[in-house]
Amino acid sequence: MRRQRTDVPLLYAKHVAIMSLNQLSATTALARMQTGEISSEALLRACLKRIDERDKDVRAWATLDREGAIAAAHEVDGARRPESCNIRPLLGIPIGVKDIIATANLPTEYNSPIYRGHKSGSDASVVELLRKAGAIVLGKTQTVEFAAHGWPAPTRNPRELSRTPSGSSSGSAAAVADFMVPLAIGTQTGGSLIRPASYCGCTGFKPTYGTVSTEGVKLISASLDTVGWYARSVADIGLVAYALEITNELAITPKPVETLKIGVCRTHYWDRALPATRNAIEEAARRFAAAGATIEECEWSPEFAEANELQELVMSGEAYFAFLNLFRAHGEELSDSIRKRIVRVPADRLLTAVDKAAALRPRFDRLARGYDAILTPSASGEAPVGHHIPADPSFNGLWTLLHTPCITLPGLVGPAGMPVGIQLVASRGADKLLLATAAAVAPLLQTTDVNRRALL
Amino acid sequence: MRRQRTDVPLLYAKHVAIMSLNQLSATTALARMQTGEISSEALLRACLKRIDERDKDVRAWATLDREGAIAAAHEVDGARRPESCNIRPLLGIPIGVKDIIATANLPTEYNSPIYRGHKSGSDASVVELLRKAGAIVLGKTQTVEFAAHGWPAPTRNPRELSRTPSGSSSGSAAAVADFMVPLAIGTQTGGSLIRPASYCGCTGFKPTYGTVSTEGVKLISASLDTVGWYARSVADIGLVAYALEITNELAITPKPVETLKIGVCRTHYWDRALPATRNAIEEAARRFAAAGATIEECEWSPEFAEANELQELVMSGEAYFAFLNLFRAHGEELSDSIRKRIVRVPADRLLTAVDKAAALRPRFDRLARGYDAILTPSASGEAPVGHHIPADPSFNGLWTLLHTPCITLPGLVGPAGMPVGIQLVASRGADKLLLATAAAVAPLLQTTDVNRRALL
Repeated sequence: MRRQRTDVPLLYAKHVAIMSLNQLSATTALARMQTGEISSEALLRACLKRIDERDKDVRAWATLDREGAIAAAHEVDGARRPESCNIRPLLGIPIGVKDIIATANLPTEYNSPIYRGHKSGSDASVVELLRKAGAIVLGKTQTVEFAAHGWPAPTRNPRELSRTPSGSSSGSAAAVADFMVPLAIGTQTGGSLIRPASYCGCTGFKPTYGTVSTEGVKLISASLDTVGWYARSVADIGLVAYALEITNELAITPKPVETLKIGVCRTHYWDRALPATRNAIEEAARRFAAAGATIEECEWSPEFAEANELQELVMSGEAYFAFLNLFRAHGEELSDSIRKRIVRVPADRLLTAVDKAAALRPRFDRLARGYDAILTPSASGEAPVGHHIPADPSFNGLWTLLHTPCITLPGLVGPAGMPVGIQLVASRGADKLLLATAAAVAPLLQTTDVNRRALL
Repeated sequence: MRRQRTDVPLLYAKHVAIMSLNQLSATTALARMQTGEISSEALLRACLKRIDERDKDVRAWATLDREGAIAAAHEVDGARRPESCNIRPLLGIPIGVKDIIATANLPTEYNSPIYRGHKSGSDASVVELLRKAGAIVLGKTQTVEFAAHGWPAPTRNPRELSRTPSGSSSGSAAAVADFMVPLAIGTQTGGSLIRPASYCGCTGFKPTYGTVSTEGVKLISASLDTVGWYARSVADIGLVAYALEITNELAITPKPVETLKIGVCRTHYWDRALPATRNAIEEAARRFAAAGATIEECEWSPEFAEANELQELVMSGEAYFAFLNLFRAHGEELSDSIRKRIVRVPADRLLTAVDKAAALRPRFDRLARGYDAILTPSASGEAPVGHHIPADPSFNGLWTLLHTPCITLPGLVGPAGMPVGIQLVASRGADKLLLATAAAVAPLLQTTDVNRRALL
């Protein structure tokens, strides 16, 4: 089943002798911009070149702001000063923004005919913050219709075009994984951030619920919607976390691996994990242990058994109110799928689910605080073949419900040669610890020929 | 202390022999429009006339859309059909919209220089729904800066211009109380809906948290922000509730008073209630009992003692993230008050408060389900003299925290002759029951000369 794919070596960009600028991590690019070795404009043009080569196939972008972005990069290059990296930690770095997030200068279309060409009057809070941190919005990335149960994004998995990148943050994950841009913003209400990262083979981060303003982001489920982002390294994830005041240090200091205590949590849904995922979890645990970390089976309490069901109920119940204006004013322009799947949940059922979810959160935190991180699947397996595959939220809904920070790390591969992420989860508010843990273990997941064989 | 105020008779509009159209409730106006007795345009012009006479003093409006509203009314009048009232329950009714809520055709300025002249690209969800129900947006109403701790609205209390209307939904409450418009939309994160209604003497309703989408509304505190509205009758409150699918019947059927069981709840903050409020609660309880309702002291549990403190913590903690982009990008254009009072709450303190709040909600619901409604103060007293008075959230923060539906009913007056509302509260999701209860008792609060004396 092994195929020749010309882009595979890019996965292991570290090993490529001569890297194009678009392959650089944001952290590396920033360091080289500081020394004057490269310019923001050159970086941007390299990203655009990659997009020009690849996006007719990958279809990650809904809109590009070529001229605006080049002009912004040019301006950054003319005004760059040595001290600016702490104040403007993303100065001159191009980013992608999921097309359910408002941008003042570019259309925000939600992958819906209702909003074709729609211009919001201002940037979403997160976009304004990232621009203020120096980021340059290169364009808007493709999304599932309203990031809900609707029309899939046209995006294809950059690792193998016949496969889905998953959604709903399809374009953001694919663009980062395919080296079109070093950072991109997405959202998660079910599994919309973590699953696409796992399928496409990049790093995806969902911070603790509530720490990034959702103002200007399409509302789906007020108590679940979370803004997160993609990068190709944990260090880059950390740059954005710092820019958004989720952490207080520009550079993440990895925790020494031998001090780490990691709990393995197979969840109540382990029977839905395909061999690719099962192997990835076992392999990650083995590698972490071999590097000196303490690995324990997590004491997974029966009280969490209904977490995914609760997430479904809360999401649907809240989404009904969030979509009511669209149902009323634009019902015929919504996909059948949205119209059929977003239905009113009786108030008592919804409130019971909301209350149960709220009660589970501190209980999970107490459990999670016994570890540096909990190791758990990012998705049920490799990206399936096809582009209209219903997403399996089994390994994501519960963490969204629990409001925990989550990160998925790439490196491992499955029997079809596709990426398989592993997810690390921590207690609410422990975002910094989670990133320090992820930074420590991420290098252990790099797939060499030797350990790739062990997986197959 | 009794003053001559020319607008007092309008309070008791029922007793005025010849009413101007602007004094009609929406329900009455709709009925007369159905019979062709009046037109939407005539109603709108009467509202504009009232605004022209009064708004130089009251200052309720930030922006008016005279021509647009007249054109819309004209169009409604040309196309009105007998069957439309269930499908378009607000057809031809002018409304005011608090200026932190996005409108496609009018500026949304948040009472902030940052957004002077700002146009959002689309309507907030609630505005789109109300337009779809036939409402005509007459204009935007004045608000406290970002509905947070900032600059007060320029609005004055229409009952006595030297007094505050309170905030943050200042303009919406004043416009409705002063017969400038029959309905207006506001928001509550602390006491921003209920307190201004009490001070200005109109009916104010905050539905169960989560039942009205906050999309397009300035985010302050994601787990507290609630859209609500003002009217001059419970029936009118019900029209909007129906339009937003909070209730399933156009007309509220009042519960027979003699079947009502009402719990009196003085809360833990009774010592902050001024005589005006204490008398209002006792008087309301006395009247309800005299009309046949069962009145009981509510068993108010000590566990609710910290509810206001929790509300403050959650609001501040969440507001920090909601305002981060403004702090970073526009810090110098924010009021000192916002910059000083919205500060980061450590994650563990915030999460503890969030969890405690979540645990209190079902406990309060169980208590509230023992009654048709709980009778409790709307505010600590009459509207104070002055326009820069810090708002006392003692009788509101806890209900916002508990996510309950709340309604404040006018009619009673205090020693200074100013209105004093009484608040009815129910369990989450019991909005319809609350409105049926409110509709039953609201007429009992009408202040005649005889019972006015009893209050003084």
